[in-house]
Amino acid sequence: MRKKYLSAALIGRFQPFHLGHLEFIRQILSENSEVILIIGSSQANFTPHNPFTAGERTRMIKDSLIDSKIPMEKVTIIHIMDDENNYRWFSNLKSFAPPFNVLYTGNVFIKLLLENEQILLREPKFIRKELYNGSNIRKLLAANDPQWKNLVPNAVKKIILELNGSERIRKLRTSWEDSPFRHLKE
Amino acid sequence: MRKKYLSAALIGRFQPFHLGHLEFIRQILSENSEVILIIGSSQANFTPHNPFTAGERTRMIKDSLIDSKIPMEKVTIIHIMDDENNYRWFSNLKSFAPPFNVLYTGNVFIKLLLENEQILLREPKFIRKELYNGSNIRKLLAANDPQWKNLVPNAVKKIILELNGSERIRKLRTSWEDSPFRHLKE
Amino acid sequence: MRKKYLSAALIGRFQPFHLGHLEFIRQILSENSEVILIIGSSQANFTPHNPFTAGERTRMIKDSLIDSKIPMEKVTIIHIMDDENNYRWFSNLKSFAPPFNVLYTGNVFIKLLLENEQILLREPKFIRKELYNGSNIRKLLAANDPQWKNLVPNAVKKIILELNGSERIRKLRTSWEDSPFRHLKE
Amino acid sequence: MRKKYLSAALIGRFQPFHLGHLEFIRQILSENSEVILIIGSSQANFTPHNPFTAGERTRMIKDSLIDSKIPMEKVTIIHIMDDENNYRWFSNLKSFAPPFNVLYTGNVFIKLLLENEQILLREPKFIRKELYNGSNIRKLLAANDPQWKNLVPNAVKKIILELNGSERIRKLRTSWEDSPFRHLKE
Amino acid sequence: MRKKYLSAALIGRFQPFHLGHLEFIRQILSENSEVILIIGSSQANFTPHNPFTAGERTRMIKDSLIDSKIPMEKVTIIHIMDDENNYRWFSNLKSFAPPFNVLYTGNVFIKLLLENEQILLREPKFIRKELYNGSNIRKLLAANDPQWKNLVPNAVKKIILELNGSERIRKLRTSWEDSPFRHLKE
Amino acid sequence: MRKKYLSAALIGRFQPFHLGHLEFIRQILSENSEVILIIGSSQANFTPHNPFTAGERTRMIKDSLIDSKIPMEKVTIIHIMDDENNYRWFSNLKSFAPPFNVLYTGNVFIKLLLENEQILLREPKFIRKELYNGSNIRKLLAANDPQWKNLVPNAVKKIILELNGSERIRKLRTSWEDSPFRHLKE
Repeated sequence: MRKKYLSAALIGRFQPFHLGHLEFIRQILSENSEVILIIGSSQANFTPHNPFTAGERTRMIKDSLIDSKIPMEKVTIIHIMDDENNYRWFSNLKSFAPPFNVLYTGNVFIKLLLENEQILLREPKFIRKELYNGSNIRKLLAANDPQWKNLVPNAVKKIILELNGSERIRKLRTSWEDSPFRHLKE
Repeated sequence: MRKKYLSAALIGRFQPFHLGHLEFIRQILSENSEVILIIGSSQANFTPHNPFTAGERTRMIKDSLIDSKIPMEKVTIIHIMDDENNYRWFSNLKSFAPPFNVLYTGNVFIKLLLENEQILLREPKFIRKELYNGSNIRKLLAANDPQWKNLVPNAVKKIILELNGSERIRKLRTSWEDSPFRHLKE
Repeated sequence: MRKKYLSAALIGRFQPFHLGHLEFIRQILSENSEVILIIGSSQANFTPHNPFTAGERTRMIKDSLIDSKIPMEKVTIIHIMDDENNYRWFSNLKSFAPPFNVLYTGNVFIKLLLENEQILLREPKFIRKELYNGSNIRKLLAANDPQWKNLVPNAVKKIILELNGSERIRKLRTSWEDSPFRHLKE
Repeated sequence: MRKKYLSAALIGRFQPFHLGHLEFIRQILSENSEVILIIGSSQANFTPHNPFTAGERTRMIKDSLIDSKIPMEKVTIIHIMDDENNYRWFSNLKSFAPPFNVLYTGNVFIKLLLENEQILLREPKFIRKELYNGSNIRKLLAANDPQWKNLVPNAVKKIILELNGSERIRKLRTSWEDSPFRHLKE
Repeated sequence: MRKKYLSAALIGRFQPFHLGHLEFIRQILSENSEVILIIGSSQANFTPHNPFTAGERTRMIKDSLIDSKIPMEKVTIIHIMDDENNYRWFSNLKSFAPPFNVLYTGNVFIKLLLENEQILLREPKFIRKELYNGSNIRKLLAANDPQWKNLVPNAVKKIILELNGSERIRKLRTSWEDSPFRHLKE
Repeated sequence: MRKKYLSAALIGRFQPFHLGHLEFIRQILSENSEVILIIGSSQANFTPHNPFTAGERTRMIKDSLIDSKIPMEKVTIIHIMDDENNYRWFSNLKSFAPPFNVLYTGNVFIKLLLENEQILLREPKFIRKELYNGSNIRKLLAANDPQWKNLVPNAVKKIILELNGSERIRKLRTSWEDSPFRHLKE
């Protein structure tokens, strides 16, 4: 008997891509035929909350998945820009992504936007979310605390070092208030 | 003797439309021939400050005015999006609204933008503004405090209940910080 | 027995609002409880194809319907801006309009966009479309051919005369090629 | 001796993805370590020139490459929106794409934009371009001429049939002039 | 007796700046205290109609005026982007320009936009407009006809040669149809 | 021996232009052949952080430099809008500015954006930055503290008084929270 074909989507900003994400993707692929990774806030970069470009984030994800022997024919990476009209968020997303029938999210906000949509929602089982989350990792990077290296895949570690990511985030944090951009949202 | 024809405009975000707005519209119509209601921030929805879509806000206003026997041929509803170029705010507004000769506003900021414009400004006489204001009503909704029901017209109460507005606002407030959108302005 | 409540939407650019539109709205209201009029390309004005502002178009519609004794509590007017992402067109529209269950359109393109949407489509029975259409009326206005006056409601005739609409369109057509805007779409 | 790692980029609108593209990607991968496929005009869909959404185009490419046994770990798909400021085109592109050192293009315009940039340009060797090009294929689809099936990979044929692509394009072409969008660029 | 202080504005796309513009600026400065040069369509570049960037156009104007000994303290150069909401065109312009009391334009379209504005309009007395106009000069450049050199100031000639402007325009014209951008407006 | 021709750029929001800026421009012109002044956040005005329009800021700079006998043929003023895609910031800037080979900035953020760009960076030697900075001057203006008059050139003092700048900033600060715009970034 043929298992039903299931395509699952996962949304995140991936600032940066970490081991929690990687573990989650494994989990999704164990339950689904393919996964669509949606990089949110793709228009933003070089800000305290969004230090890495969409291209850098794409590379982090791609290299990590390849290193982890995750078959890339099962993975699609998509970029989505922010929009204040959240009502059309899902429709906009569907215009940029191949079709999917499951969306994995633990986020109450995303669930709210999808209440009236024809899409199956599933809860991720995140491991140790207090450690494995972008906000914490950016904080460690800003503090030059080497602990961040334990929280991201090897490929990401290599890319962040190559990009001087720690220094980039530190400079973004300290200079934002002093920059011509300080009146902007972080 | 024929009274002079006066068209008056009123701007607000109407998040949500409340009894203070309704009372104000009555007051405006007692002094003017027609009223143009301008729904600001029309592009924003499903955010803590702008939980309702422009369409939902339009419906709230429309149903409330009809219930209150306000003659709809005297009312025009217009949507306006935000723009950081405030200098052109009034010109932009005029491109979307029928002509008007009075603008009712108690807001110092709007008055500032209109200082050099050919438009008559009038002060609203708001009743109990500490109660009847969107910020307070959204707070009550978020807290699931039934007091909000006393502050909005019946039609709005019905729409908010139908939309699960209380839950929507509560979810928006609690999930914002945890959502991929948390770096955005509320 | 209570008739089912039906809300119908009609989309157009209304450049300008004409007797064909008016007749169509009468027809819609004979079959539905209310009508939502959606003014498309609301961001455009003072171009050969979109000579009138959204505000002027709103006024044309409003004044014509009132003159025709159409009860305004059954009418909602909404503005929609253009967007190249047509896939999200309907979702965007729904964020700006109150709910509706029927969309009247004879337009193949709109039908195409709505193929997978939960909305009832109905065909308008337009009268003498070769005469009653915006393109023809703008042509007559540009040529200063008084025939246009027979194709629009009295209220629209009055507004166009007040705005010097004939001269406006003539100037737009003749100056476009010579203006700093000539490389733009009309 | 280790061959130098080369990442190559290829830009196109892929409306639709055809056998010429596929052949070209094979050629690129025979000379480079990986390829980055850049889907241009990603914001546009359901127009005569851009009938398919970015998501549909992504799926066409993905399915075709998998069918052709092209190793997906060597392929990255990126979306780029149009922008009238062509001077910043390459900088914008680099913010969305992983790094690449070669750009394959036969297009004089793209070459012009890249004249002062640090990037290696290579000429594609297109096979039978008069047949294998999007414009020709869209024309065949609009005419319901089954010849189009010979010009696209099997996976694309399947997707276009599933989407009623032939009918979609025919409707877009015939209805455009009659739609509320006719004043827009195709 | 002190002559009244008059500030005059002149709008154009300056693609490229030519001797007709230069002569016109002299004429304006003979009648006014200062001139504000408004570069329109500043967001567009590397297109057939807008081959030069706003920066290149600024440089062309600046160098030509300095060469012609026009006192630069009497000149301000401003950039304006296109916007389909023409109704707010003047208000937008005023937000970017220092105050002016006269606008020189022979363009019927601009005059139409300014009909209800508080601004004095004056007619330029252009010399030999069939020769000295951007469209003609771009045509000569595309054809590699050296006649263009007689129609622009020496400084512009130097800049266009330095930028390979003739080749740029020729490539833009010939490649546009073949580029991924061909569906866009020129 | 001819000194090398050096063009230097300086970026700021100039809210408002003050004596620190003026002193800095003198310093730049003593070391370079010309200066390009880049007014950032040009799209914003009438907000607490950006109270003055780009046009008003242009006038402040222009009048101050002329009063200070700085030769205007050595000065170019350019406007730049904000953009969340900081990666393309420099490319965007270059499309609007004439060529320059030095950028003066003490801002760590700007330096970060320029790390991989072909541009010479120099440190400004600001005088008494705790006094001569926009934030401090806006605070004094809001408080109606006449000390601000000692921190700006005479021309700026005159313009701010003419525009009732002190009152404008005070009103913006006090009304922002109460305005329909309060949910926006300042």
